[in-house]
Amino acid sequence: MKTYAEMSREELENEITQLKKEYQRFQGMGIHLNMSRGVPCKEQLDLSMQMMDVLDSDSDLTCDDGTDCRNYGALTGIDEARELLGDMMENNPKDIIIYGNSSLNVMYDTVSRAYTHGIMGSTPWCKLDSVKFLCPVPGYDRHFAITQYFGIEMIPVPMTPTGPRMDIVEKLVAEDEAVKGIWCVPKYSNPQGYSYSDETVRRFARLEPAAADFRIFWDNAYGMHHLYDEKQDYLIEILAECKRAGNPDLVYKFASTSKITFPGSGIAALATSPNNMDDITNQLKRQTIGHDKVNQLRHVRFFGGIHGMVEHMRKHADILRPKFEMVENILEEKLGGLGIGSWTKPLGGYFIHFESLPGCAKAIVARAKKAGVVMTPAGATWPYGKDPQDNSIRIAPTYPSVQDLSVAAELFALCVRLVSAEKLLEEKGA
Amino acid sequence: MKTYAEMSREELENEITQLKKEYQRFQGMGIHLNMSRGVPCKEQLDLSMQMMDVLDSDSDLTCDDGTDCRNYGALTGIDEARELLGDMMENNPKDIIIYGNSSLNVMYDTVSRAYTHGIMGSTPWCKLDSVKFLCPVPGYDRHFAITQYFGIEMIPVPMTPTGPRMDIVEKLVAEDEAVKGIWCVPKYSNPQGYSYSDETVRRFARLEPAAADFRIFWDNAYGMHHLYDEKQDYLIEILAECKRAGNPDLVYKFASTSKITFPGSGIAALATSPNNMDDITNQLKRQTIGHDKVNQLRHVRFFGGIHGMVEHMRKHADILRPKFEMVENILEEKLGGLGIGSWTKPLGGYFIHFESLPGCAKAIVARAKKAGVVMTPAGATWPYGKDPQDNSIRIAPTYPSVQDLSVAAELFALCVRLVSAEKLLEEKGA
Repeated sequence: MKTYAEMSREELENEITQLKKEYQRFQGMGIHLNMSRGVPCKEQLDLSMQMMDVLDSDSDLTCDDGTDCRNYGALTGIDEARELLGDMMENNPKDIIIYGNSSLNVMYDTVSRAYTHGIMGSTPWCKLDSVKFLCPVPGYDRHFAITQYFGIEMIPVPMTPTGPRMDIVEKLVAEDEAVKGIWCVPKYSNPQGYSYSDETVRRFARLEPAAADFRIFWDNAYGMHHLYDEKQDYLIEILAECKRAGNPDLVYKFASTSKITFPGSGIAALATSPNNMDDITNQLKRQTIGHDKVNQLRHVRFFGGIHGMVEHMRKHADILRPKFEMVENILEEKLGGLGIGSWTKPLGGYFIHFESLPGCAKAIVARAKKAGVVMTPAGATWPYGKDPQDNSIRIAPTYPSVQDLSVAAELFALCVRLVSAEKLLEEKGA
Repeated sequence: MKTYAEMSREELENEITQLKKEYQRFQGMGIHLNMSRGVPCKEQLDLSMQMMDVLDSDSDLTCDDGTDCRNYGALTGIDEARELLGDMMENNPKDIIIYGNSSLNVMYDTVSRAYTHGIMGSTPWCKLDSVKFLCPVPGYDRHFAITQYFGIEMIPVPMTPTGPRMDIVEKLVAEDEAVKGIWCVPKYSNPQGYSYSDETVRRFARLEPAAADFRIFWDNAYGMHHLYDEKQDYLIEILAECKRAGNPDLVYKFASTSKITFPGSGIAALATSPNNMDDITNQLKRQTIGHDKVNQLRHVRFFGGIHGMVEHMRKHADILRPKFEMVENILEEKLGGLGIGSWTKPLGGYFIHFESLPGCAKAIVARAKKAGVVMTPAGATWPYGKDPQDNSIRIAPTYPSVQDLSVAAELFALCVRLVSAEKLLEEKGA
C-alpha cells in the first residue's frame, strides 16, 4: 500500500474523485452529530440516578461532627466529603477544600484571586506589567480562555507522551519572574490522553521558579477515568512530591466529580499546602459562607467510600471503552499506513488527539461540519485558538451513541483523506 | 416611672446593686446560646425536607426545552428556574441569571469582576487610584467585608425608616466619580428591618452618578420574608423603575432561596438589564460551564410555582413571628420608659435592631457574652467594624428556640440596664 505522499498526481486525482463521491453519500445522509465537547453520554448519567435516592425527607442530614448540612457554615466542606475527595485525590483530607459544582470555577477564582490580591503576600498580578503562563500544547481551551481573559501572556510548551518538555519548562520558569503559572492536565491529558511520567512529576516538584508566586495549576480532571482495568496509567501524587522536594507551596491541585456523577451537579475540590490553604480561606470567607453541603453529603452517602467510587468508574469505563476502541479501529482501518495523520490511543480520559498533516486541521473540521458532524474547532487546543501548524484536532468520542459515533468516525477519516489528498496534490503544483 | 437619666446617684447605685444580683443569677445558669447570625432554626429547615423527595431515581431530569439537567450547560440557568425566581423577584425571567448556592458569592464575584475588568467597558477598578462605596449604616457586615477586601473606601450614609438619607446619596453619587456603588438591603433591611419607601426607590432609580460604572447593589435578601399576612411592607420593583427613569443599567439586583429552603443548598440569582447581562455573561462563560441545574429543577418541582413559595413562606412566618414578638415584648417590659434604648419592630426579615445609649453597645454585648449569650459583635453593623457612636446592636432572634430566646432576651435587657446605669452614674462624675 502506498502512502499518499508516494502517490503520483494522477493517483491522487483518482483518489480525490473517489473520496468526493463517498463524501457526497455522507452529505446525503442528513447527519446531525455534535462531538465537540467532552461530555458524558446519557448512559453514563444514568449510572448516577440512584444518587437521587440516597437523601429523602426522612434522612438525617447531620454530619458526624454535628453539622446540620441544611444550614449555613462549613466553609471548606464537611469532613465526610473531604475524606472521600481526599481518597479520590490521594491527599490528606485536611489539605482539601470542597467547593461548589465546578472545578473550572475554582480555577477561574484561583487566577482571579492572584490577580486581585496576589499569592501569599506577593504583589497582585493586576499591579504587574507582565504576567505569563506556560501552556502545554495541545491543551484545554477553557484553561486558555481563563488566562486570556485576564490578559495573561500564554507561552506554548510542547507536550510529549511523558508530559510537557520539562527542559523548556524548567528554563522558562527559572529565567523569567513574569512566569507565574503553568496549566497541567497530568493524567489522561486533554486532548492527548497522555499521563506525566514519574520523572516529569519529580521535575515539576523540583522546579526553581524565579517568581515566589509561581504555581503549578494541576488539573487532575481525569484521575479516576481509566478505560481499562488491567492497563492503567499511574501518576505520582504531586503534593507529596512537592513536600518531599522542599517545595510544599508550589502546586494547586484541582479535581471534581463532574464526570463521575453529574456534570454541573457534582462537587469540586482543591488540594494544596497549609500555607496556600490559609491564603485561600482568607479570601474564601469573604466570598461565601459555604458551599452546598447537602450535595456533598449526597455524594458521600451515594459512594459510601472510595471503593464505591472505583466500582462506579468501572461502569463508566464499560460504556466508554467500546467507543474509544471503535474510533481507534476505524482510524486504523481507514487511515493506517497512508501517512496522513497519527492519533493517540489513551488508556483513560475523554479524548483522542489526531495530528493531521500540517495545514489540514481546519479544513478537515470544516469538511466534517459541512456533512453534519461538529467537532471541536481546530485551533482550540492552542492558546488564542491559534495552532501554528494547523494540525491538531481533538476527538471527543464520549457523548454520541456507538452507532452515531461510527458514522462520525467514518466521516472524519474520509475528510482527513480528502483534505490530505487535496493538500498533497496542491503541493505538487500545477 | 423615672427614666435612668432622671435618677439620682443614689437611685442609680441601688439599681446597679439590684441588677448585679440578677446578673449573677444568670451567670449561675450556665447559659450557652448563640444568637450572633441570621440563620434559620431547625424547625424552619424541617419545612423543606420534602424537597429531598421531589427527585428520585425514576425522575425525568429533563427540562421543557430538552435540556438534560444532569449534563453540562445552561450558563444562565434553566428556563423553569428563571421563571420561578422571576416571579419571586418580580422580574422578567430573561433578565435573570441563576447562579449557585450563594448570593453573597454572586455579590463578591460582581465586585471582583468590576475590579478586574470594569463594567461595560469602563476602566477596571484595580487600575483606579480611588474607588468608593456608599454604605447605609447600620448595615450588613458581609457586604462591608467584600468592599473592604478589595480596598474600596466605604462611606457611611445614615439609614432612616424610609431608607438611606437620599439627599446625601444623591450628592455623593453626583459629585464624586470615585463612588462606584452602594450596598442596599431594600426590604426588611439588615439589621433594622426597614423597607425603602416609594420615594426612596424612585430617587434611587433617578440617581445621576458622575461615574458611568456606578451601580446600585440591591440585595433583596428578604423580599419574601414577611412575618405577617395582614401587615406587609411593599417595595417598588427597582429594575422596572430604573427603566422607566431612563437608567436601565443602574442596578444589580440579588436574591436567593437560602432562607426559603436550605441555606447553602438553595439557588441564588441576579436580575439586571440586558446590557449588564451581556457584560456579565461574557465573563461568566469563562468562569463556569453552568451552575447546578439538578438543584434548580429540585426547587422548581418542590414549589410548583410562586404560589407554593408564598405558602411556604407563611410557614416560616408562623415559626418566626412568635420569636420576634417575644423579644419585642421582653424589651418593652424590661426597658420601656427607661430612656436607655430603642429598638425596631420589623414586619419581616431576620433582625431587630437595638440602639443603646452612645458608648454602651460594646459593653452590653460583652456583658451578655460573659453570661453565656453570644450576640453579633457590636460595631459589625458599620464599615470596618467601627461604630463611631458605639450604640448599634443587631439582635438575631431566628435561630434559638423560643425558650432559649426568652432567656437570652431577658439577659440582654438586663445587660442594657446594667451597662446604661453604670454609664450614667459614671457620667455624673465622682
